[in-house]
Amino acid sequence: MEYKVPKYLQIKTDIINAIKSGELKPGDKVDSESVLKKKYNVSSITVRKAFNDLINENYLIGVQGVGTFVAKERINRKLTSISFSDELLQQGYKIDMQVDKIEEIVNENIAEKLEIPPERSIICVRRIRMVNNEPVAYQSSFMDSNMLNLEQAQKICESKSFYKTLAEYNIFPVGATENYSVKAVNDSHIAKLMNLRKGTDTFFVKRTTYGESGKIIEYAETYFNKDWYSVTVEVKI
Amino acid sequence: MEYKVPKYLQIKTDIINAIKSGELKPGDKVDSESVLKKKYNVSSITVRKAFNDLINENYLIGVQGVGTFVAKERINRKLTSISFSDELLQQGYKIDMQVDKIEEIVNENIAEKLEIPPERSIICVRRIRMVNNEPVAYQSSFMDSNMLNLEQAQKICESKSFYKTLAEYNIFPVGATENYSVKAVNDSHIAKLMNLRKGTDTFFVKRTTYGESGKIIEYAETYFNKDWYSVTVEVKI
Repeated sequence: MEYKVPKYLQIKTDIINAIKSGELKPGDKVDSESVLKKKYNVSSITVRKAFNDLINENYLIGVQGVGTFVAKERINRKLTSISFSDELLQQGYKIDMQVDKIEEIVNENIAEKLEIPPERSIICVRRIRMVNNEPVAYQSSFMDSNMLNLEQAQKICESKSFYKTLAEYNIFPVGATENYSVKAVNDSHIAKLMNLRKGTDTFFVKRTTYGESGKIIEYAETYFNKDWYSVTVEVKI
Repeated sequence: MEYKVPKYLQIKTDIINAIKSGELKPGDKVDSESVLKKKYNVSSITVRKAFNDLINENYLIGVQGVGTFVAKERINRKLTSISFSDELLQQGYKIDMQVDKIEEIVNENIAEKLEIPPERSIICVRRIRMVNNEPVAYQSSFMDSNMLNLEQAQKICESKSFYKTLAEYNIFPVGATENYSVKAVNDSHIAKLMNLRKGTDTFFVKRTTYGESGKIIEYAETYFNKDWYSVTVEVKI
């Protein structure tokens, strides 16, 4: 007696095997629905069932109107270090950053976040964070200009380590509050730097970093590419 | 001498005032670009500049191809309690849940998450979580059938408090690991229950809950409506 494997399971297994063998690599586009329909002589429903399973099991990512791709392994931030760079370096990633803009601004909303007077000027550092040569995040950091001036901020960008350079000015972060949500990139300039279409959702992080005295050192907003980023936290009663 | 307010700032101020006065309520659609162009006698660029500012400052949400809406106040989970219900009740929300499905399944991937043999049957409870009468989340909880049987699971759904009912069976969670990422709802049934279009991105949470002995009590996957949910965590060095 012949045991017949359902066709959708056949498609699924073949794709998983191709991923495991390295024939299909992260980011690769997989054969389209119509190609697979012909190849396996099945209906659209059968192909979609295989795709749905593979998407739910995180092997594939479906991008509406574009195609279906092999999922990239997400970075998993575990918050073992206050520094994004340090944690990813520990995890074995190659990291880099490119400064987009350093400027002095006046902004009431940001001043409120930094708990400084609304008219005080703020140092703003905007940069792209690269992980394994891919633009994973766009980060805007804000600091009180009385704590760090424009010239000092420029040095931070040369040395590429924010917290190490701050230590040279005797500024030591001891903790941070992070807020996570989903937010679309509506700025074309940022979208372009991140290699995303304008309007794409991102994993959005708002972060307030504190010094020893409880004083706020930095407020930062970061758009993370949603296909590459995740965070794991421990909850205790 | 007359001081002239830039037109985009005029539009912005008018919309903010309408929101603050309650004339525009969370979820309301605001006037379209073409309506505002005529009303203020300005170009599309001017209206878009006002919209962009308001979206960046979280007053409005833009939904491509649909329109621009007054932002809803996001729920901000602060992880002060292991129980979602308890924390939101403390925050003053009205909460409720509707069971979608309770079943006994066999699934290798989930068994791995629960650290039980792959052939062991698993109790699966799928439900919609309502906050202030809105379907905020779709949650699938999985438990070892040796720990909780189908009948017991059904009681949990009647009592509407998961952890309180578990306590009756002497099961006490002491901690959990949560993983956050962005994931599209690709299941039409789930999308419909959440009032979302299929393919919409959500704030996706994978959670493993532990008992006193370090034994895994539950593994859960939850899709949260991205417009309504955020999480805040504390990071310490």
